[in-house]
Amino acid sequence: MFLIKLGGSVITDKAKECCFKQDIMDRLAGEIRQANKQVIIIHGAGSFGHILAKQYKINDGYKRKKQIEGFALTQAMVQRLNNLVLASLHNHDIPAVSIPPHAVLSLSDHEPARIDFNIFKKYLALGFTPVTFGDVALDNQLGFSICSGDLLIQLLAAEFKPEKVIFVIDEDGLYSANPKINKNATFFENTTVKDLEKLTTSLDAHADVTEGMKGKINTIKQIAKTGADTIILNGNIHNRLSDTLKGKTVKSTLVYGEKP
Amino acid sequence: MFLIKLGGSVITDKAKECCFKQDIMDRLAGEIRQANKQVIIIHGAGSFGHILAKQYKINDGYKRKKQIEGFALTQAMVQRLNNLVLASLHNHDIPAVSIPPHAVLSLSDHEPARIDFNIFKKYLALGFTPVTFGDVALDNQLGFSICSGDLLIQLLAAEFKPEKVIFVIDEDGLYSANPKINKNATFFENTTVKDLEKLTTSLDAHADVTEGMKGKINTIKQIAKTGADTIILNGNIHNRLSDTLKGKTVKSTLVYGEKP
Repeated sequence: MFLIKLGGSVITDKAKECCFKQDIMDRLAGEIRQANKQVIIIHGAGSFGHILAKQYKINDGYKRKKQIEGFALTQAMVQRLNNLVLASLHNHDIPAVSIPPHAVLSLSDHEPARIDFNIFKKYLALGFTPVTFGDVALDNQLGFSICSGDLLIQLLAAEFKPEKVIFVIDEDGLYSANPKINKNATFFENTTVKDLEKLTTSLDAHADVTEGMKGKINTIKQIAKTGADTIILNGNIHNRLSDTLKGKTVKSTLVYGEKP
Repeated sequence: MFLIKLGGSVITDKAKECCFKQDIMDRLAGEIRQANKQVIIIHGAGSFGHILAKQYKINDGYKRKKQIEGFALTQAMVQRLNNLVLASLHNHDIPAVSIPPHAVLSLSDHEPARIDFNIFKKYLALGFTPVTFGDVALDNQLGFSICSGDLLIQLLAAEFKPEKVIFVIDEDGLYSANPKINKNATFFENTTVKDLEKLTTSLDAHADVTEGMKGKINTIKQIAKTGADTIILNGNIHNRLSDTLKGKTVKSTLVYGEKP
């Protein structure tokens, strides 16, 4: 089975609130359908979540009453995005069922405290495609905080030992620096977590509460520890996702899982 | 605290797929806000759920592969309705957070097998208004079936011992027969479950997989056993909900809880 993370910057316009990239989502849904593999899909919250979450400082935890409104609004907004993702998947004959983090897990000072993997297993066993996403969440220490798509993928990788974890992003893969601002950035084709750790990354310029390259590399490190290979690929280029799911090699970064 | 069930026939047009009654929902949201009580809101699936659920025979359990598609489509459709309800509540300053049954509970041959009440308690403790709804659900015996809003309210009443359980429907309350088709139907103002049981009810004419008066009376019977009074009132008439929440008497049916 595969874990597929659809990056928030691929399926939404991160700079514009609630701007869904319908065409890209539809193409990616088609590519997943065509490859016909067992998958769990995780999508970022993109501009449906990050702008409000930042405005209300949800990830700082509960500090003032106004944040209650912010949490509720963010939850609903991310659910709207999830509806759009579900509709696109359903239109491509993928029997997607939503598993919203704010209802099924809790964190403890940003770290996972309790997550119900059984719900994923039961839906998979029946032939459904579970879909989860970056979301607001209860936090035993902080009242609430944010459960990023990257944290979810890390937890799911540890539990499900997938064949591969695929990050669908808006770049071809990992670079030595941010390729958006540094033209001398070198591309990594095959690499190990050890190599990545040596790397000093420049942070990307998007309004993003949870991601950024540094966090991404830490996530991949955790995934590599579970033994799974991670592939980071460009969702804006046709067929890279479907080809990867089918086992073909495309331009992408492969981070080897650590073999025991 | 109060449990409020917003009937599917009040907030949607049951005869027409996906027709949300925005004006009525907005008014009811305003009435809930104005009364300013701690509440859990449960809404029916109405025409967003029943039509698809019936078409794919979801409540019969998993019998053929095509139903997987039907379950997924119904889940997404009901989530769309939930989005509309959340938006209306948020617009009236109610910090509503969605708790979707298909992700937090499982049934066993239509009966509740496992439900996470903690999630409701945690959101209530932080000052949120939990919102749950009639939904498709996992079923340990049948693969899947339907978790009706009425089943949810019954479970929540047993756990939370609310001051009152309020059913917001499209009639003034309970009658000796279906008042839509029988003009001689007599109205019940104050009654006990014992009285209701004597009653032979005519089934209502809507396309409804889960409700109907017979089921409703059984639900109220279970609620009465928990000691809570149940009030059934007309959501189409202004202020009946807010007045009831404030403790005023309006035209409605009051079913006394059984005192130990």
